[in-house]
Amino acid sequence: MSAQQSVGIVTPQVARFDEPLALTCGRQLDTYELVYETYGELNASRSNAVLICHALSGNHHAAGYHSADDKKPGWWNECIGPGKPIDTNRFFVVCLNNLGGCHGSTGPSSINPATGRPWGPDFPPLRTRDWVHSQARLADYLGIGCWAAVIGGSLGGMQAMRWSLEFPDRIRHCIVIAAALKLSAQNLAFNEVARQAIESDPDYFGGNYQSSNTVPARGLALARMIGHITYLSDDAMANKFGRDLRSGSLSRGEDSNAEFQVQSYLRYQGSQFSGHFDANTYILMTRALDYFDLALEYDNDPVAAFRHAQCSFLVISFSTDWRFSPERSREIVDALIAAERPVTYAEIDAKEGHDAFLMPIPRYLDVFRAYMRRVGDET
Amino acid sequence: MSAQQSVGIVTPQVARFDEPLALTCGRQLDTYELVYETYGELNASRSNAVLICHALSGNHHAAGYHSADDKKPGWWNECIGPGKPIDTNRFFVVCLNNLGGCHGSTGPSSINPATGRPWGPDFPPLRTRDWVHSQARLADYLGIGCWAAVIGGSLGGMQAMRWSLEFPDRIRHCIVIAAALKLSAQNLAFNEVARQAIESDPDYFGGNYQSSNTVPARGLALARMIGHITYLSDDAMANKFGRDLRSGSLSRGEDSNAEFQVQSYLRYQGSQFSGHFDANTYILMTRALDYFDLALEYDNDPVAAFRHAQCSFLVISFSTDWRFSPERSREIVDALIAAERPVTYAEIDAKEGHDAFLMPIPRYLDVFRAYMRRVGDET
Repeated sequence: MSAQQSVGIVTPQVARFDEPLALTCGRQLDTYELVYETYGELNASRSNAVLICHALSGNHHAAGYHSADDKKPGWWNECIGPGKPIDTNRFFVVCLNNLGGCHGSTGPSSINPATGRPWGPDFPPLRTRDWVHSQARLADYLGIGCWAAVIGGSLGGMQAMRWSLEFPDRIRHCIVIAAALKLSAQNLAFNEVARQAIESDPDYFGGNYQSSNTVPARGLALARMIGHITYLSDDAMANKFGRDLRSGSLSRGEDSNAEFQVQSYLRYQGSQFSGHFDANTYILMTRALDYFDLALEYDNDPVAAFRHAQCSFLVISFSTDWRFSPERSREIVDALIAAERPVTYAEIDAKEGHDAFLMPIPRYLDVFRAYMRRVGDET
Repeated sequence: MSAQQSVGIVTPQVARFDEPLALTCGRQLDTYELVYETYGELNASRSNAVLICHALSGNHHAAGYHSADDKKPGWWNECIGPGKPIDTNRFFVVCLNNLGGCHGSTGPSSINPATGRPWGPDFPPLRTRDWVHSQARLADYLGIGCWAAVIGGSLGGMQAMRWSLEFPDRIRHCIVIAAALKLSAQNLAFNEVARQAIESDPDYFGGNYQSSNTVPARGLALARMIGHITYLSDDAMANKFGRDLRSGSLSRGEDSNAEFQVQSYLRYQGSQFSGHFDANTYILMTRALDYFDLALEYDNDPVAAFRHAQCSFLVISFSTDWRFSPERSREIVDALIAAERPVTYAEIDAKEGHDAFLMPIPRYLDVFRAYMRRVGDET
């Protein structure tokens, strides 16, 4: 473990909520738990709190380490810590595992109190709005009236935008990284194939695999492989693997499996993921992505939508991101400008594709840090 | 059936070869059959023959109809027929099902004479070079010394390029549409996930599904869905489906399956394909694609490779093709120019993505027709 420029060892906490949460689908959750981590100190005026919203396969462990011999830090350790863009010397940072998740918060693998068995596929479908409302409950629980900033990349950026519309007086800055106003048909298509891969795994049992003591590991691995391709740019893959063969020389003989390095890499990614992620959660979260459409209830007009926001915005995109391309971020920026909201936009030249939002790209960190300094100066 | 501007009703023919074919992998096929169709008439000087090479999931049925009540013409009916770019009033057109295929030519679903059982996964792995050599045998069989043109799109274009190097004195024109000198890491990655989908289907049985009277239909459907996404541009998908829901209105209630039109379309495509294509053939053909690398044996120098060619080239790409983008075609063209080979290049503005090569796009057909007229004038 390297604690340098790190928040050090962190311990997840659990908040339990007993007031029912009404969901977009019309159902409600009577009780639920949210697991979260915090980094830094809440100041006396409670004005320096920042919420981190995670993406598709993320969780509450955004920074630091869970133990002294923990080798892997939280998923956004590059951006959260002392002196980092989200500076824990200045901010009180909160990151939770979203409702429906599989890392401690109530979700499909939790016990349904009505049946005494895991929810499985009967867990209510969630929308981004539901996450935002549950996050507002967590803010109440922590005594945070207004976030200095709500921040997220990808699906996390969608939650940040939804915050600006659902609770305009509880968010001062909205930071939207590598996101979009809604998914394109191609985005929908990739999510569909990923879900199909899971659902057609015979070990899926219609989602009731826990009761059957199985895990749809093959389907989930395939889903992850498909996702992974869309997170990387063609260039990033070329730089990382090219057409290199595992053996180093081109076998012209009989085929073996996974001769190319990129293929064994994908297999590894897939099998790692399927060992620790819940398939029903993956399905739930991709559906939330599919249905996210910021302007739907505002006559499909993002300008009309953003007129309800009162905060300032930072929007960041990455040049080789083909999942949510810079063009999609410019749609957000154009709507914000037309809605006369304060917005800063940076398109970062980066070869890493969508994954760039997790990477220590100097110009990205510089822009992010400079903006957050301004946010901090207001607290 | 519409026979207008069509070659009309065509009947596949079978050629049997008893001279062993040595394969790149070191093994050989002692005997094999190739199924093929021909359109138009071979002229007295046998100088007007054109070879069509098919792509990943193609076959020998490129034009016309198989019966009077056949509703679906051959796969390249837009380009082959009287008055069409490949004008059957002028050319004798030959299209075969490649070795290893599943539409009549010897392949994994054929009987292995050594065992009396289907080859299945024991069918020798093939390279593009093997296809070209088997196609040369078919040319011998048909009495064709030199093709007026060898033509192909996608993987078919790779065969056409390989022809120009393996048999430089048997090809006068090489027409390469929506192809590349080799696959990118991203291309390899998509093929890998497609194969993984098939191989992780429990009905695959390590490729011996025929002996088990099963078909890995779910895996093959997934593979096709993944492929299909890469054939269409994001724009084409947006124009075709957008985010339209099947029901026409956004259900905010419980999730049902495949709510978005693009999702039900993909499911349909996948299930249709898995009903008529052989999984082992799909694996074999994607591996041939993976290993295609035109310049590998020429010190990885495409210029050195093309110096062995003696024919003229037409190269065509499509603006929104992200599987084999215009940039990949320009690599071919640049190498041809540096090798001082005659080359015509057209980048066609088209919104259909990779699939554009099968579509009746006016400028595409015009360029193609004009070039083929020149080819015909030489015969």
